[in-house]
Amino acid sequence: MVGDKSSQPRNAERRLHELGIELPPPPTPFGAYVEAVQTGNLLFLSGMLPVAGHEPKFVGRLGKELNANAGKDAVRLAALNALSAAKQKLGSLDKVTHVVRLCVYLSTDGDFFDHPRVADAASELFRDVFGDDKTPVRMVLGVASLPLGMPAAVEVTLEVEA
Amino acid sequence: MVGDKSSQPRNAERRLHELGIELPPPPTPFGAYVEAVQTGNLLFLSGMLPVAGHEPKFVGRLGKELNANAGKDAVRLAALNALSAAKQKLGSLDKVTHVVRLCVYLSTDGDFFDHPRVADAASELFRDVFGDDKTPVRMVLGVASLPLGMPAAVEVTLEVEA
Amino acid sequence: MVGDKSSQPRNAERRLHELGIELPPPPTPFGAYVEAVQTGNLLFLSGMLPVAGHEPKFVGRLGKELNANAGKDAVRLAALNALSAAKQKLGSLDKVTHVVRLCVYLSTDGDFFDHPRVADAASELFRDVFGDDKTPVRMVLGVASLPLGMPAAVEVTLEVEA
Repeated sequence: MVGDKSSQPRNAERRLHELGIELPPPPTPFGAYVEAVQTGNLLFLSGMLPVAGHEPKFVGRLGKELNANAGKDAVRLAALNALSAAKQKLGSLDKVTHVVRLCVYLSTDGDFFDHPRVADAASELFRDVFGDDKTPVRMVLGVASLPLGMPAAVEVTLEVEA
Repeated sequence: MVGDKSSQPRNAERRLHELGIELPPPPTPFGAYVEAVQTGNLLFLSGMLPVAGHEPKFVGRLGKELNANAGKDAVRLAALNALSAAKQKLGSLDKVTHVVRLCVYLSTDGDFFDHPRVADAASELFRDVFGDDKTPVRMVLGVASLPLGMPAAVEVTLEVEA
Repeated sequence: MVGDKSSQPRNAERRLHELGIELPPPPTPFGAYVEAVQTGNLLFLSGMLPVAGHEPKFVGRLGKELNANAGKDAVRLAALNALSAAKQKLGSLDKVTHVVRLCVYLSTDGDFFDHPRVADAASELFRDVFGDDKTPVRMVLGVASLPLGMPAAVEVTLEVEA
């Protein structure tokens, strides 16, 4: 639906393989919600956290207990969890016709300014997997806190085959 | 539109009655915006606050002036206001075919970690009213502040009959 | 698609001219993302910042280094950047059939309560340009920090001609 783009070949699964990326097991909710809801051509995903096996892999705030490089690692892990949740819902990431919106939430104290570079860890992963022509809009903000004290969360909306 | 789900019976109004829930009067804006906009099958609602009659019922931050239980009460009141705004727009909550996205914003200091439990106050209300098969994705974050110093806000996107 | 509203005349470009508003040059990304993505009838825009020529025009937090009036100016500039990005994508703002959702992020310390008045700087601009019948829902929140230390960001979703 995004201009002429939807007719371009979609080979996210092959790219994942070529990049040597193995997706983590699909994340499981921390409360009374689900990880993915499709409505029409849009797939909404829950806010994804830097967890592995339902356990936080990173705890702390950027600019305080953690530096920007740890933030990038946390954002990338959260973004991988988003891909895993999408794949579980869709069966194959090749059904993704566009990455529509990416919101990156970073737990910071008020003196952290390096949001764009940290958020690029998610943007670059999606670009590598889906290709340049499926790049989303982005919002990145520093928040006071995230569930269980984690430093980052990633919220993604995808356009998918109907 | 959400898979096979839209064919299941929708009886949110009857459930509200059975649960003994009386919706508050529809909230009114705190500025130059509206409480609900429908586009296609999606109904977007404004960020709903824990107000009654345009007055804050809760003021303060979680982990500072307010504890998690007060947070749950505030989240539930904001979620009830969301239902009331949706009903005012739609005429009946039975027109809701899915709860797509729930975002819960909690005003916290940086040392509050109990977001999922507090946000469940909204998730559980929606599950009780709409049923398990219409459960949304969720994002919950701790923010620095919310309008008029309130501790919680709830933003909901619904899928509705066209 | 929004009720009967889409049949009303759309003259955002004429209004801009009548109001004497000259849009800034379209903003450019601070990372690996794009400024606008259309899917179906929805145009999602990236979080827009109070920048001119890729340079921050405002730095600081509301209630700390900056007061509410500076916040209003920053919000208005970010909203103008949103209009410029939308126009670049669409060719003409007359293709906007509704402003669906406006989210205003304000960098605050925890003791700032005046969010609605500051956010109205964006709401009033959109009302002046698109008219009362295209008013969006709104979420406004105080965040810990925003990219490069800026005090405000504005995220807009538009309904547009297919």
